[in-house]
Amino acid sequence: MVAAPVSLDTLCVNSIRFLAIDAVNQAKSGHPGLPMGAAPMGYALWDKVMRHNPKNPKWFNRDRFVLSAGHGCMLLYALLHLTGYDSVSLEDIKQFRQWGSKTPGHPETFETAGVEVTTGPLGSGVANAVGLAIAEAHLAARFNRPDCTVVDHYTYVIMGDGCNQEGVASEACSLAGHLKLGKLIALYDDNHISIDGDTGVSFTEDVLKRYEAYGWHVQHVPNGNTDVDGITRAIGAAKAVKDRPSLIKVTTTIGYGSPNKSNTGGVHGTPLGSEEAQLTRESLGWDYGLFEVPQEAHDQFRQAVERGAAAEAEWNRTLSDYRKSYPDAAAEFERMLRGELPQGWDRDLPMYTPEDKGLATRKHSQLCLAALGPRLPELIGGSADLTHSNYTDIKGETGSFQAETPEKRYLHFGVREHAMAAVINGIAYHDSGLIPYGGTFLVFADYMRGSMRLSALSGLGVLYILTHDSIGVGEDGPTHQPVETMASLRAMPNMVVVRPGDGNETSGAYRVAIRNRKRPTVLALSRQGMPNQANSSAEKVAQGAYVLEDCAGVPELILIGTGSELNLCVQAARQLTAMGRRIRVVSMPSMELFEEQSPAYQDSVLPAAVRKRLVVEAAAAFGWHKYIGLDGDSVTMGRFGASAPGGTCMEKFGFTTANVVARAQALLAA
Amino acid sequence: MVAAPVSLDTLCVNSIRFLAIDAVNQAKSGHPGLPMGAAPMGYALWDKVMRHNPKNPKWFNRDRFVLSAGHGCMLLYALLHLTGYDSVSLEDIKQFRQWGSKTPGHPETFETAGVEVTTGPLGSGVANAVGLAIAEAHLAARFNRPDCTVVDHYTYVIMGDGCNQEGVASEACSLAGHLKLGKLIALYDDNHISIDGDTGVSFTEDVLKRYEAYGWHVQHVPNGNTDVDGITRAIGAAKAVKDRPSLIKVTTTIGYGSPNKSNTGGVHGTPLGSEEAQLTRESLGWDYGLFEVPQEAHDQFRQAVERGAAAEAEWNRTLSDYRKSYPDAAAEFERMLRGELPQGWDRDLPMYTPEDKGLATRKHSQLCLAALGPRLPELIGGSADLTHSNYTDIKGETGSFQAETPEKRYLHFGVREHAMAAVINGIAYHDSGLIPYGGTFLVFADYMRGSMRLSALSGLGVLYILTHDSIGVGEDGPTHQPVETMASLRAMPNMVVVRPGDGNETSGAYRVAIRNRKRPTVLALSRQGMPNQANSSAEKVAQGAYVLEDCAGVPELILIGTGSELNLCVQAARQLTAMGRRIRVVSMPSMELFEEQSPAYQDSVLPAAVRKRLVVEAAAAFGWHKYIGLDGDSVTMGRFGASAPGGTCMEKFGFTTANVVARAQALLAA
Repeated sequence: MVAAPVSLDTLCVNSIRFLAIDAVNQAKSGHPGLPMGAAPMGYALWDKVMRHNPKNPKWFNRDRFVLSAGHGCMLLYALLHLTGYDSVSLEDIKQFRQWGSKTPGHPETFETAGVEVTTGPLGSGVANAVGLAIAEAHLAARFNRPDCTVVDHYTYVIMGDGCNQEGVASEACSLAGHLKLGKLIALYDDNHISIDGDTGVSFTEDVLKRYEAYGWHVQHVPNGNTDVDGITRAIGAAKAVKDRPSLIKVTTTIGYGSPNKSNTGGVHGTPLGSEEAQLTRESLGWDYGLFEVPQEAHDQFRQAVERGAAAEAEWNRTLSDYRKSYPDAAAEFERMLRGELPQGWDRDLPMYTPEDKGLATRKHSQLCLAALGPRLPELIGGSADLTHSNYTDIKGETGSFQAETPEKRYLHFGVREHAMAAVINGIAYHDSGLIPYGGTFLVFADYMRGSMRLSALSGLGVLYILTHDSIGVGEDGPTHQPVETMASLRAMPNMVVVRPGDGNETSGAYRVAIRNRKRPTVLALSRQGMPNQANSSAEKVAQGAYVLEDCAGVPELILIGTGSELNLCVQAARQLTAMGRRIRVVSMPSMELFEEQSPAYQDSVLPAAVRKRLVVEAAAAFGWHKYIGLDGDSVTMGRFGASAPGGTCMEKFGFTTANVVARAQALLAA
Repeated sequence: MVAAPVSLDTLCVNSIRFLAIDAVNQAKSGHPGLPMGAAPMGYALWDKVMRHNPKNPKWFNRDRFVLSAGHGCMLLYALLHLTGYDSVSLEDIKQFRQWGSKTPGHPETFETAGVEVTTGPLGSGVANAVGLAIAEAHLAARFNRPDCTVVDHYTYVIMGDGCNQEGVASEACSLAGHLKLGKLIALYDDNHISIDGDTGVSFTEDVLKRYEAYGWHVQHVPNGNTDVDGITRAIGAAKAVKDRPSLIKVTTTIGYGSPNKSNTGGVHGTPLGSEEAQLTRESLGWDYGLFEVPQEAHDQFRQAVERGAAAEAEWNRTLSDYRKSYPDAAAEFERMLRGELPQGWDRDLPMYTPEDKGLATRKHSQLCLAALGPRLPELIGGSADLTHSNYTDIKGETGSFQAETPEKRYLHFGVREHAMAAVINGIAYHDSGLIPYGGTFLVFADYMRGSMRLSALSGLGVLYILTHDSIGVGEDGPTHQPVETMASLRAMPNMVVVRPGDGNETSGAYRVAIRNRKRPTVLALSRQGMPNQANSSAEKVAQGAYVLEDCAGVPELILIGTGSELNLCVQAARQLTAMGRRIRVVSMPSMELFEEQSPAYQDSVLPAAVRKRLVVEAAAAFGWHKYIGLDGDSVTMGRFGASAPGGTCMEKFGFTTANVVARAQALLAA
């Protein structure tokens, strides 16, 4: 019997499959099923469709690819390796999932050049892709000229059944449909299998119809296992539809080619094992060794290098023309791409004296946005339908980013907190200098925490403008009053939480947040007003904590306050001082920034010998013992809040000068 | 001019509207817009459709009503008051949003009898309703007999545009469609307005088509402002469709009746003010005073009392027949309704000695579920598509809760963590003795934290079985390795987090969790194995922390460990003891439970005088300083994890006996 001749396409597709099979087997850990089923999609995209430059993974105008089903990362690593990215050598693939390797168990931007988005938590990748597509549309509208197109790329996604079950994807894809993001094209790997087995046990909705309801263009490729041409044609049709995002359902068999494990949950996240790998080799007619790539396939894939170089060269010529024809726009565009902040960006941030009327820090925040808006054209953001509560608008600007007005930089996310966080992450992943922000109530950080964690993990310089930061919220009651939320965010590595105590500190918080281009910042802002302090400092916010009011000599007791409770500390200190006590007041807008200071500075603020320390914050005490130790005390919240006017809540829960004084006295007497 | 005669329906509907208007005005705070628009829906449901008994809000067989758009709570309070619930007097309505009132700013089950579900965070209510409908379907399948129907009620929801934008609602409604929950009927208040103004800025999808895609039956009532009959007919049609949940889109005008504010974002969450209230009175022909209810409307609404009493009496007769015909089933049914655990429910929980092979605590958890399953028929739950990773199955049971098999108690939630948490909350809200649990990876608590917070706030006795609880996860890498997750949950009031350190402690954790009928419990469980300790105790888990190993005399240093790191402490203590040191090992599976112990007990475990304390936990240090103070130390995680085999991760991040010994020595030398 003579074997049928194997097409080059098949050779290429199977090269992906066996790199995945062999790497997962070698690691004795990983997810072979998706790469085996989705290899034709990956091949079609990376070989036939996408513009990308393997030798410059950061080339600005590349098409973006997001593997939303991040567990299938061997698909991505195989494609990076095969198309010639230096970041993933064959040796790296052999080191799949090992300590220090470039091929971790899920794709991580900070580990592997060519990985656009950190994925793994399902649904988040496609939501990030919505942000990438927004960034592209926005920059294209701002910078392209009729005779010169410097921004022009697609955003491609491979998502799985799991992604399509997650709410974050639903939210983001509804928004994408509303915004008519025509250059967003998602391929849905419809393999009917998730970890619990057949999706028939939990997921039987009509996915295409749902996306149609969102306003997407939808198609179906019934044979995703081998029909590379069909996939390629469908992508072409999707590209032709410019006024809607596209979903292409590609029906595949998970673990395609494995005689005993394909189409089972068992191939989702477990190595095939050497025996089944051998049977799969036989079943697919694969005569090559472990990690071996046939020369013809290698040569085919590596054409991406030349194609990519040519594409970038062409774009460089366009950019060169653009520089000549539109020097100002080009200068701004290139400044943004370099990630440089403009000169004097923070010049208009407001400063205050105690004579200035005390405002809510959410109002101070609005004034900061008004001051930054004109000087920071890269600022882009909005609110999850709480614009007039969060005060996230940029004063003086009208209109918002809509299908017809993509040049606008205000984003109406709708009541979609999780998508908001994922979308601003996506804008940051676009890596084009945009500074994205998103606002909601602090308590609803809980709705988007999955994506906030990814901001922190991937080091994305996004701003979370989170208002209504305590029981001071008042009447809306405990469902809307954060108690534990700040602690939960402070616990997160690489997340900077700033809770400013007045106007100057709010300006300082923005300075920190804008400078934090490689990590996210949470601004925890009050609903209610508070006075401006005489000695508050915008600059010192960057140190996390500083001495706001001091006594002569060594303090007997240190009051530590944040946000709206800072003034309680100041007032209590005044009364205690009048009683002859030596009291220091420390403002601590940010634990994380304080932790980064030198031990000497830390000791200058909180001397080791002064053990009587009282923290005042209308939030859970959890985490504060790092500063008050076993000998200090706290005026904090030991329970959820209650519905009543904010001032009443504050009083009933003990946030009064009298109570702070009493607790300080008890501590002094102890 | 003679005014047209006003129908009784209109009088009733406007009674709701003006109670809402007046209460919000009096509170100077609240959301009048939804009650004004949705009053006809509320009236139709509560007067014409629902079976409920105002004088016994807890009557088991009542229809459940969920105001998913919780900000419109004055609609619900008005209906409770008007139909005769003692929990909401006219005086309570006048105290809307005041300290200690029965009418908080969002509906809270623990404040107001007749409120079935705590709502406010959007989308969660309708997701809870899916849980209520699951509970009804399950109990009906288990307890009803061909000649005797003791479980038979509908679950009704009013949801808004905001709910329909939230991912948690999307997830839950997709699941509801899959499960064909025919007795779930949601009314969608389609008023086109959210806080940012017209939903046209962010939300233009075809909602009915989306629900059709989920498998729901859909209808549209175009005039929700006045067409009470149309609404009532649509609900009737929805009830007739028994094999699908129903969505009825009811188009309304937010703030209907207000000449200047209706159909604007301004009426969503701001009082009308007395002037506009007066204009609204004129516009709707309302000649009644503040808080005045026309007698005819009052009488109409109050018929609910008699109807409700009759309905309950009839059900009581059915139950009485049921007791006679099916005494065993009736005894179990009534035991569950009383919330009593069965005798000997924990008898089979396994106990271990060090000779027993050490397992992962997720495996111990599976053995606990196997031991509890047969003795606790009220146990019901599942996993968000990680059954074979979380080991949430009940051994020996086959099949799962599906449309055709609602008597089964295993739930395949799909890859829908947030919906899972909301659904198990809904099952708990059903208040029929069911003990619901849900499993996923610990790190994905972030996806469902919004609903976990509501478990804690509402005091729901649900179990979160959260496995893969540290960097011990290994190869899946930092997206899947919790670091800050436990801290974030420990910070939450009323949430009990238990991280058991071996088999006995896992059994103890289950004892705690099952006994916690009025608060949620998180079980943080390992992926990897650990030995069984000689002195571990299931009973002492309830005390949160206890002395596992002790020295003679006063300890020089206390090692505090949890979970998989407990054994590191034991091993390190052995080595340090051999060096002549006096070392105590404290196992602290639960901070929250330890905090509830007497100061004397706490001091017996952690004597105030012993300040050299070293905590070992493969998680963020955040929160541990409460026990280690300023003089202790910790072997914890100061960053996100990494992708590598779990043992490698543990070693690289310092979770080795040698490192614990070294850090202890450093502390001893300090």
